[in-house]
Amino acid sequence: MFETQVDVRLYDTDAAGIVFFANYFRIAHDAYQAFMKSIGHGLDRIIGQSHYLLPIVHAEADYKKPLVLGSTVTVSVKGQVKDTSFVVSYTLKDGDGITVAQLQTVHVAMDKKTGKKIALPEEIKKGLSTIS
Amino acid sequence: MFETQVDVRLYDTDAAGIVFFANYFRIAHDAYQAFMKSIGHGLDRIIGQSHYLLPIVHAEADYKKPLVLGSTVTVSVKGQVKDTSFVVSYTLKDGDGITVAQLQTVHVAMDKKTGKKIALPEEIKKGLSTIS
Amino acid sequence: MFETQVDVRLYDTDAAGIVFFANYFRIAHDAYQAFMKSIGHGLDRIIGQSHYLLPIVHAEADYKKPLVLGSTVTVSVKGQVKDTSFVVSYTLKDGDGITVAQLQTVHVAMDKKTGKKIALPEEIKKGLSTIS
Amino acid sequence: MFETQVDVRLYDTDAAGIVFFANYFRIAHDAYQAFMKSIGHGLDRIIGQSHYLLPIVHAEADYKKPLVLGSTVTVSVKGQVKDTSFVVSYTLKDGDGITVAQLQTVHVAMDKKTGKKIALPEEIKKGLSTIS
Repeated sequence: MFETQVDVRLYDTDAAGIVFFANYFRIAHDAYQAFMKSIGHGLDRIIGQSHYLLPIVHAEADYKKPLVLGSTVTVSVKGQVKDTSFVVSYTLKDGDGITVAQLQTVHVAMDKKTGKKIALPEEIKKGLSTIS
Repeated sequence: MFETQVDVRLYDTDAAGIVFFANYFRIAHDAYQAFMKSIGHGLDRIIGQSHYLLPIVHAEADYKKPLVLGSTVTVSVKGQVKDTSFVVSYTLKDGDGITVAQLQTVHVAMDKKTGKKIALPEEIKKGLSTIS
Repeated sequence: MFETQVDVRLYDTDAAGIVFFANYFRIAHDAYQAFMKSIGHGLDRIIGQSHYLLPIVHAEADYKKPLVLGSTVTVSVKGQVKDTSFVVSYTLKDGDGITVAQLQTVHVAMDKKTGKKIALPEEIKKGLSTIS
Repeated sequence: MFETQVDVRLYDTDAAGIVFFANYFRIAHDAYQAFMKSIGHGLDRIIGQSHYLLPIVHAEADYKKPLVLGSTVTVSVKGQVKDTSFVVSYTLKDGDGITVAQLQTVHVAMDKKTGKKIALPEEIKKGLSTIS
């Protein structure tokens, strides 16, 4: 498992006083980006230097409890390799350890030149195995 | 059905050259917000003046085709009333009429004072019936 | 002068109940993007197909009055060509015609290959002359 | 001086491959928010529990060098108390210690009930004196 922590940022909240639903995906993606960096496949390297991209084909979130300004969120990340895709799961807990949301992103591998789906690169499978 | 149109905004895209996955939810929510205004229940009124909120308890997206800067997106909105929730579905098409993504948000009604789930207000059910 | 209109979007507001200060720049940039499209130099064309970029080297905003959810904002855009830069000025008015903010962005022209500052392209000067 | 560090987040960049100009203000505000928390006046406390707000009346940025995905940004924060306002200055440096941008936000104090400008609270002046 991989973990990050972040304070809720004022601009993640909205006039209803809580984090705007789409911004949970940003918070989750921050953790994904940090994880990818930790396994040596930072998104800058993938976007700029590799022959593939890892586009998200599906994303979902279950919201359990409003997340408010002043909270420190812990994001736990898990990965699961499938045949031609991988699933990243995120559990967001507030400062009291209460689960506020659970999210998933499903990624495939795509060749940059052809735009076609390709097999998951071994280096990515290997990295994901550390949080399976 | 309710429809809105929006040009992809530069800040919705990211360094991979396409709209960031979380920002599809923003584009969809713009359409939701416009729909709610069109039925006389603008979010400003709900957040500021009504006794309830309509928090999102689940959201999901299927991404079919990258959405790029320069595209004009048409968002079609449909609603479905369930027992204690309602589902809003969004289809995003690009300028060629190709479906680029399909999204859903699931909402419940919550009493502002108690924070407890309540029955869907009749006025909301009625408004949603226009796009069922 | 060039004008656009937009309803304040829920995600532009924050937990203080008003539009987050950085998001005024987004609203202004929407108007800039629409203007550039209107003169035939859409940002997608500039970023994807021209030999130059028009990076912002300075931006500033004066906030006069809080902007709240439910407001419809009118953005008026003016341009001014200088020796090696151009200034775009934005006046944001709420539904009552009250000025809520004034912003400026200062742009230069940069050659994509060399990354060096170049003279302002004539086509851009000409387009800006329509809102001087 | 107060300092924070953050990796450029994918969603802070745009299709031109660099951080979108308005998002520098977000990165700066993250540092402001962390500073306010560090002096015991977290924004959640101010927005939720104090009798005043500290709205931004002016903001500006000078962009020196494009900021790209993969960069780790260090934000240095300084404060300056004026008669009826305070100025917060932010210097953003990339991983090589090069200044990429300098920003300022000017804040006043406003009574929540009356919406009128008031004298700067002593507790805020005191906190700012630690980074003057």
